[in-house]
Amino acid sequence: MSSEKPSAIEAAVLRANASFYRAFTRGDFPAMSALWALKAPVTCFHPGSALLRGREEVLSAWRQIMTGPAPFEMRCDQPLVQLLGEGALVTCYEGNDREPAHLAATNAFVWEDGAWRMVHHQAGPLARAVPLPPPTAANMN
Amino acid sequence: MSSEKPSAIEAAVLRANASFYRAFTRGDFPAMSALWALKAPVTCFHPGSALLRGREEVLSAWRQIMTGPAPFEMRCDQPLVQLLGEGALVTCYEGNDREPAHLAATNAFVWEDGAWRMVHHQAGPLARAVPLPPPTAANMN
Repeated sequence: MSSEKPSAIEAAVLRANASFYRAFTRGDFPAMSALWALKAPVTCFHPGSALLRGREEVLSAWRQIMTGPAPFEMRCDQPLVQLLGEGALVTCYEGNDREPAHLAATNAFVWEDGAWRMVHHQAGPLARAVPLPPPTAANMN
Repeated sequence: MSSEKPSAIEAAVLRANASFYRAFTRGDFPAMSALWALKAPVTCFHPGSALLRGREEVLSAWRQIMTGPAPFEMRCDQPLVQLLGEGALVTCYEGNDREPAHLAATNAFVWEDGAWRMVHHQAGPLARAVPLPPPTAANMN
């Protein structure tokens, strides 16, 4: 996605992906809850952590994370979409504020009742931080 | 997948997932190459590493990994399938030989020309190793 213009479907997936990082950055738990799928099974690997499985486990962890310390910006750098039929993957780098990205992430979405909803998130540490890319339409929230 | 009997589709995805770990463990690069999608875009996050993108980048990294030191067993513990239309996700833990799993992984597959082929792999470190599960039909290669 970094060089080509995204298709309308890819752009919709990128908007869903951006809304994940926006909800995180704003500490907006209702927006985070609305993003995760209601029907499709959901899973989440937070960095270093074992698998969370099902809406209740996944969202109660997000609630804990988001009602903890004051919210901080979680950026999504270089998002790349892969469409898989009714599903889609976004791979990206994650960083806070203006620091180089320190996490690699996989975000999976499913087309559910007229919206791209999240079904999986994995973030894990990068051995070497990835410098901030120049701003583009694709990675602005 | 740990407690319920997988559907025929889920079982086929688990077989594709098992063939990934079998190819790795055997150092069988042709099998690894055959598993990755030929048409769908592919990506890979090795632990700590930046994104590899496209068959050439992804497979040349696998060739390097698999022609390095003598092959060692890479297990896949507790594989869980999420179907996404023509795509599927498998989340699991990875460990070597009989040691507790030390990596969390997301493997994505797409139904392509009559086979489940890999389109994405991410593995990253677990803060706490996950003990070996008892052997079941679902996680035996």
